[in-house]
Amino acid sequence: MSVRGGLDLGGTKIQAIVFDTTGERVLAQARHPTPREGGPAAVVDALVAAQQEAATQAGTTTERLGGVGVGSPGEIDGAAGTVARASNLPEWEEPFGLAHALSERLGTQVSLGNDVDVATQAEFALGAGREASSLLGVWWGTGVGGGLVLDGKPWTGRGSAGEIGHMVVRRGGARCPCGRRGCMEAYAGRRAMEARARAKAKAGEKTDLLKLMDKLGRTTMSSSVWARALEREDKLAVEIVNRALRALGAGIASAINLLDLEMVVIGGGLGVRFGEPMAKRIAAEMLPHLFFDDRPPAVHVATLGDLGGAIGAALLSERLAPAAAA
Amino acid sequence: MSVRGGLDLGGTKIQAIVFDTTGERVLAQARHPTPREGGPAAVVDALVAAQQEAATQAGTTTERLGGVGVGSPGEIDGAAGTVARASNLPEWEEPFGLAHALSERLGTQVSLGNDVDVATQAEFALGAGREASSLLGVWWGTGVGGGLVLDGKPWTGRGSAGEIGHMVVRRGGARCPCGRRGCMEAYAGRRAMEARARAKAKAGEKTDLLKLMDKLGRTTMSSSVWARALEREDKLAVEIVNRALRALGAGIASAINLLDLEMVVIGGGLGVRFGEPMAKRIAAEMLPHLFFDDRPPAVHVATLGDLGGAIGAALLSERLAPAAAA
Repeated sequence: MSVRGGLDLGGTKIQAIVFDTTGERVLAQARHPTPREGGPAAVVDALVAAQQEAATQAGTTTERLGGVGVGSPGEIDGAAGTVARASNLPEWEEPFGLAHALSERLGTQVSLGNDVDVATQAEFALGAGREASSLLGVWWGTGVGGGLVLDGKPWTGRGSAGEIGHMVVRRGGARCPCGRRGCMEAYAGRRAMEARARAKAKAGEKTDLLKLMDKLGRTTMSSSVWARALEREDKLAVEIVNRALRALGAGIASAINLLDLEMVVIGGGLGVRFGEPMAKRIAAEMLPHLFFDDRPPAVHVATLGDLGGAIGAALLSERLAPAAAA
Repeated sequence: MSVRGGLDLGGTKIQAIVFDTTGERVLAQARHPTPREGGPAAVVDALVAAQQEAATQAGTTTERLGGVGVGSPGEIDGAAGTVARASNLPEWEEPFGLAHALSERLGTQVSLGNDVDVATQAEFALGAGREASSLLGVWWGTGVGGGLVLDGKPWTGRGSAGEIGHMVVRRGGARCPCGRRGCMEAYAGRRAMEARARAKAKAGEKTDLLKLMDKLGRTTMSSSVWARALEREDKLAVEIVNRALRALGAGIASAINLLDLEMVVIGGGLGVRFGEPMAKRIAAEMLPHLFFDDRPPAVHVATLGDLGGAIGAALLSERLAPAAAA
């Protein structure tokens, strides 16, 4: 039995697990909020605390884990163990040696991967993509990330492939949190959706989104806030989600026109929360843009749910383990 | 020495060559116009005539060629030897058994590939992409096609990858010749550019494009017509080409954001005619949309020029040759 740690570092939360990679079982888990300030040092503290809590629950310590994998946003240099330009994390522009910093504190080897890449790998290995040989993972959350598996292997290009959220769906269009214009994420990312909702509410448009946020005790419009607003058929929420779906349809269809893949797996906070009915709607929004629309790809929701990223991180730790330690 | 035929079937012209795949040399070539009516039968006649002419010039017959490869537009089923939905060819909607029809007439084995895929392979093997391990080919001509080489191998997905011209660059935007809206080709394809120029001229806008077309003895606004108009700084031509460049920039950058490739090779009638200065402008138009803009991919013009497609087709014929005949 190989027991490894997995850390999924998201824009709003950190998910830690202890995973039995042989039995493919989650032995324990812990979830902490992602610090909103304090830079990389604060994030390291939070990651360590989450992984330690999960280890304790599994009746072990982080030092006894075979290794820990981390799925991180931003620009990853897996070989150097650094993360740079993680715009959804606090004050994290310059490359920071996350693998080394964590390894010192956790007392075991730490491997870094892109958060969406590892989550896509997890869905490919153990989730919705088990039957596929090639797939596109679309992680619909704070931002919109993408992961690719081509002929059974992760495709990362020169290290940073998968930025599907920054494919242009409307040249000269809405301002994206990344600063560019017309990116898919400018319409479909939770952060951009929230900014639009707040602006519209401020301009006097009627909506329960802010009330629901307070009621659910959130400081941001989380996926549960959006889900609740849709249940109530809140007009503004419906309008903003429809706009997001149109952008997702155009962007994902563009990716399929380029790559002709057999499957799309929708994950991320919003993707998993909204589930299969919304995956069907994304598929419908893709259709008018698909060049070969008589054989669209299958569109499924990630089945590993909230834990997919952390499971993928644990699998990464195993994949990258030195042969001697494997 | 292995001598093979190569046929590049374009929307406006058919390029035939006889190619020495061992010495990597073009032994002879012939160019015929693509029939604008008469359906697949007329196209077969023209392909046969072109390949025969090239063979004669090389001092041989088509029967003595080791095989003939065809790069074709439309939906290719290489195994079945059929081409369907070739919208830039006359009356060619249903699957037509092109490989069989040609094989009977040419007296040798015929292999089919997508026109842009084979041209991309040729640039990868012998042209601008020799040094690259992965690249995106963008064929800027009547339409805008794309070809992918990933880690040294052609990527065709489920058989129809590379439709970069139908990536959405402006959701709800201009009508594309394919019937959809906002595709890159709706702004950058020669056919769409010509339609816009004619409409603007009809509406009274001043331009020399139509005059130049007559002067050069063309019935369509070929790449040489556009090149000449740009030399003269024809205002409408400049405006339409700039619009095309912006669309190419957004669409190609989107593809790079998704795949993170090291090189883009620009080919096709317009791409080759306009050459390196325009490749630089495409690179500049990509920049504002590239998520990682500090290491943009190299952008080069296809170096095999007009013959690249036919060379790629000859190489395809060799690659797909039965082992016994290889």
